[in-house]
Amino acid sequence: MSQESRQASRQELHAVEWADDGLLLIDQTLLPDRLERLRVTDVDTLVDAIRRLVVRGAPAIGVAGAYGVALALRQAERAGWDRTALLAAIARIREARPTAVNLAVCVDRVLPLLDQGPDAVLAEAHAVLREDEQANRTMAGHGADWLVKRVGALRPLRLLTHCNTGALATAGWGTALGVIRELHARDLVEVVYADETRPLLQGSRLTAWELAHDGIPHYVQADGAAAGTILRGEVDAAVVGADRVAANGDTANKVGTVAVALACAEAGIPFLVAAPTTTVDLATASGEGIHIELRGEDEVLEWGGLRTAPAVSRGHNPAFDVTPGRLVTALVTERGVLEVAAGQLPADHLHGP
Amino acid sequence: MSQESRQASRQELHAVEWADDGLLLIDQTLLPDRLERLRVTDVDTLVDAIRRLVVRGAPAIGVAGAYGVALALRQAERAGWDRTALLAAIARIREARPTAVNLAVCVDRVLPLLDQGPDAVLAEAHAVLREDEQANRTMAGHGADWLVKRVGALRPLRLLTHCNTGALATAGWGTALGVIRELHARDLVEVVYADETRPLLQGSRLTAWELAHDGIPHYVQADGAAAGTILRGEVDAAVVGADRVAANGDTANKVGTVAVALACAEAGIPFLVAAPTTTVDLATASGEGIHIELRGEDEVLEWGGLRTAPAVSRGHNPAFDVTPGRLVTALVTERGVLEVAAGQLPADHLHGP
Repeated sequence: MSQESRQASRQELHAVEWADDGLLLIDQTLLPDRLERLRVTDVDTLVDAIRRLVVRGAPAIGVAGAYGVALALRQAERAGWDRTALLAAIARIREARPTAVNLAVCVDRVLPLLDQGPDAVLAEAHAVLREDEQANRTMAGHGADWLVKRVGALRPLRLLTHCNTGALATAGWGTALGVIRELHARDLVEVVYADETRPLLQGSRLTAWELAHDGIPHYVQADGAAAGTILRGEVDAAVVGADRVAANGDTANKVGTVAVALACAEAGIPFLVAAPTTTVDLATASGEGIHIELRGEDEVLEWGGLRTAPAVSRGHNPAFDVTPGRLVTALVTERGVLEVAAGQLPADHLHGP
Repeated sequence: MSQESRQASRQELHAVEWADDGLLLIDQTLLPDRLERLRVTDVDTLVDAIRRLVVRGAPAIGVAGAYGVALALRQAERAGWDRTALLAAIARIREARPTAVNLAVCVDRVLPLLDQGPDAVLAEAHAVLREDEQANRTMAGHGADWLVKRVGALRPLRLLTHCNTGALATAGWGTALGVIRELHARDLVEVVYADETRPLLQGSRLTAWELAHDGIPHYVQADGAAAGTILRGEVDAAVVGADRVAANGDTANKVGTVAVALACAEAGIPFLVAAPTTTVDLATASGEGIHIELRGEDEVLEWGGLRTAPAVSRGHNPAFDVTPGRLVTALVTERGVLEVAAGQLPADHLHGP
């Protein structure tokens, strides 16, 4: 890589951007091989992009959803949709994926501006994007401060993360990976263990790519290796994101996360969940109320279009799991840190001063 | 598949066989696509086959190691090796993989017969094979009886297993999968969740293939899905094998196993380890003394020869992990069932009447 392109690649990534009257999404299905953007100007393409994980990560699909309402309004004007057709299109965006609460929250936030026209909706979507990136940077500071205080900062930390929660998963900077990036900026990261995150390898394809981008030393490991790595004492703390946090602190995140939480509890190391307050869903009392997306069987039965399991085998493919609040040492949001396992509840946090 | 080939495929599989003065190994790297056997008549080919996982599974590599001593003796005669060269060749077989104790145990068992010549060694290797399959069938009965008593048999069971512990991993029948096959023979299996077992997919490639072969309903799932599936109440018991059981009941098995054990403890369901007494290593006091094989990084960085992680990323690839004895609800061997978590120790079991 030339010096010039190396510098270019060190620019902050934006998974979701508005440009030239359309949405530009980094096509995350092509990484790490190719960095290409998909231009989206209609609802069908957006819904498909969200379902296929062209754009993924709870905060990023929230931002994409907010912009999606603006896209839908413009498409309605072009195509002469009536209000019913417009609202149906917006509902399809809102329900494109079920587990992350951010998608519905962000769509609902811009929805009251519908009658003020596309420009008003677009302005609010821009605000959603700006606020998400700002929340991430604030959260990263809180999380880094808390970890340093909790674990001690006598030496750089050995961290473990699961799935991708970086700039690619958000409006910018990242949630859990944002905390790690903040610690790296303080010279406090020795190494990051990035779980590969089967079946779609968001860890090895995306997180490792972001870590490489930032020059953070890291290992990719099989998801099954996480618990053993933690129990052998090779990790100081795990930091993960969330797709939905229930009122009691139960947390839905990428499948495989609860095994990391169980291993952290067994090893007595912190399990830190980093997520903006938009991910906290006080309307959901506990993890039992969180709808876990079951994705297509082929994701676990095939690889690159080639079948890896016998033809008659069925696949079981839940995309998320729920970590009980009592295993969440701390939840960090842009408002601060909540020690959930010690009894601090999200409800108090969000309703507090 | 024709009726005839279906019946043929239902014949009991033998991963390791002696035929025509050579060792026939089912090449497990080619399954489930192709069922081919590799003929082995020299030490180099055997050591390579063990390292590349052409033959794998603690009991199966034990049997292959015993036959390997016979192969080495014949090769010594053919090639005119002196005793030093012969012993060096045998040592290479014994150390081809470090974690499973069975390989060393089985080599050591036939070694005293070295001076009696190839036929005596071969006869003892045949005995090792026969005894392993017999131990598996006895163990399967003990394990099935225990599970039925423990979980209740009011309805067929929903079981979870990790890696491959069937006929392919043993001299025949299987250890953990042997227990499941025995339960299936009693019409007591509703479904088996087979963890795919990254990075080499022994679960989706081999266990699913054996389950399909036996007509046992099953789902393949990502390793990361195991804990969530257990915690959602979809599993009645987990049954896994072992590569080495320490004197205190700590158990080394395929990487990812300890997360299954932690989830079983959290959910309050049995975590059953099925392994012959040849897998119990009283000379190892605890799991801390078990050497965990670190395999090549490329296994987690590539897929089918194509890189999935960024070029600069490193891989961390421990092949096994250790489950603390207190998480092992029961250890079943051919001698019976030991409730390890409740304080019954392998030492008492092996030294008992």
